[in-house]
Amino acid sequence: MDKLSLQNPVFATYAIAATLMILKAVSMSWLTVVRMMQVKGGFRSPEDLKKTPLNPEPNPKQLEPNERVERIRRIQMNDLENLPFFLVAGFLFVLTEPSLLLAQVLLYGYVASRFLHFAAYFTAQTHDMRATLWTVGSIILIVMTLWTLLAAFGY
Amino acid sequence: MDKLSLQNPVFATYAIAATLMILKAVSMSWLTVVRMMQVKGGFRSPEDLKKTPLNPEPNPKQLEPNERVERIRRIQMNDLENLPFFLVAGFLFVLTEPSLLLAQVLLYGYVASRFLHFAAYFTAQTHDMRATLWTVGSIILIVMTLWTLLAAFGY
Amino acid sequence: MDKLSLQNPVFATYAIAATLMILKAVSMSWLTVVRMMQVKGGFRSPEDLKKTPLNPEPNPKQLEPNERVERIRRIQMNDLENLPFFLVAGFLFVLTEPSLLLAQVLLYGYVASRFLHFAAYFTAQTHDMRATLWTVGSIILIVMTLWTLLAAFGY
Repeated sequence: MDKLSLQNPVFATYAIAATLMILKAVSMSWLTVVRMMQVKGGFRSPEDLKKTPLNPEPNPKQLEPNERVERIRRIQMNDLENLPFFLVAGFLFVLTEPSLLLAQVLLYGYVASRFLHFAAYFTAQTHDMRATLWTVGSIILIVMTLWTLLAAFGY
Repeated sequence: MDKLSLQNPVFATYAIAATLMILKAVSMSWLTVVRMMQVKGGFRSPEDLKKTPLNPEPNPKQLEPNERVERIRRIQMNDLENLPFFLVAGFLFVLTEPSLLLAQVLLYGYVASRFLHFAAYFTAQTHDMRATLWTVGSIILIVMTLWTLLAAFGY
Repeated sequence: MDKLSLQNPVFATYAIAATLMILKAVSMSWLTVVRMMQVKGGFRSPEDLKKTPLNPEPNPKQLEPNERVERIRRIQMNDLENLPFFLVAGFLFVLTEPSLLLAQVLLYGYVASRFLHFAAYFTAQTHDMRATLWTVGSIILIVMTLWTLLAAFGY
């Protein structure tokens, strides 16, 4: 069967996991926008203090960091450190034609770990809990990557 | 036809859009270098104050943020928040074998939105204009991603 | 031969280079964790000051930037600015079916340049040396990307 066909259940598993993670990543940008509008601040560029329809009453304090906005930026930064590598590692992993069960456990397990990591970070749970959830995802990512590396060497 | 052949016009459309966006992203690094050399500053590491052929007259002020450099870094950060996800989402989207017209509208539309976003950010246009251009690209990215997710579920 | 098979030596070359770079990128996160635990600080979120099993004696100074941690964060940031684009550019490049020798020189050359860049940054070598190593990788990335762009236009 065509390895890159959505009729192939292993590839469809990857496509679902990947698109969910892309939507998750893009949502962080939108959430940053929502919070910047709520707090009318957390901006970063000098020109953001120009009077415009979306910012009718500019104020120099709008350029100061705002914790409600900064929290989302930190979550997004964590996504940038992780998701692009998951997207490529997962793709290469499914090209090695793993079993459907293994693909589902690893790919959906990663997705679940990232949604839980978001929930923990968003609600300011302890560093320990956040770190534990990040670790689960990171180990899955490492396993998929090592699996592919070994396969590339013919193991 | 081979879905991943450049003879396939839909895939060639993706390849053109993707490589243009990669070149755009890489250019931000080079533009940062150019501006750091112009202003002889905007450095970030303590060792950047060592006397070297490229920095014959080091000065502690070289480690202070420089707005001309920081502007490019902010543009680059915006790229990092968007382009890696576009590159993967666009790839999965063309694997669903959309019509050539749809692929061209979405992929080249995204590329155009990002070049215009760069122009607006680089010349310090209002936050409203920058946000509008970012929104166009972000919506295209979401549409391609949702399209792929639905296709993966068999719709 | 299947272009995306690990039996294809050109694709296997890409898979090896890509997985090594993904492991490199993920290692930066783990190295940040190691250093945060060593210095018991360099944290970023207010909730990281809660008393937990992993942080039994919280202290407000733990939220201040710590240079040993910040160095790894800067190295990781440099990875984020480069590796996601390499991963996609390298993939598209191998789809153009270059010779095995060219693929090995460019892909493994990139990998070598990034490992050397890490070594130079980690040990705080001069900005000049770091910049030289970064430049080698960046030029390889640009060459692969332009190669693919020209191929997409039928050259």
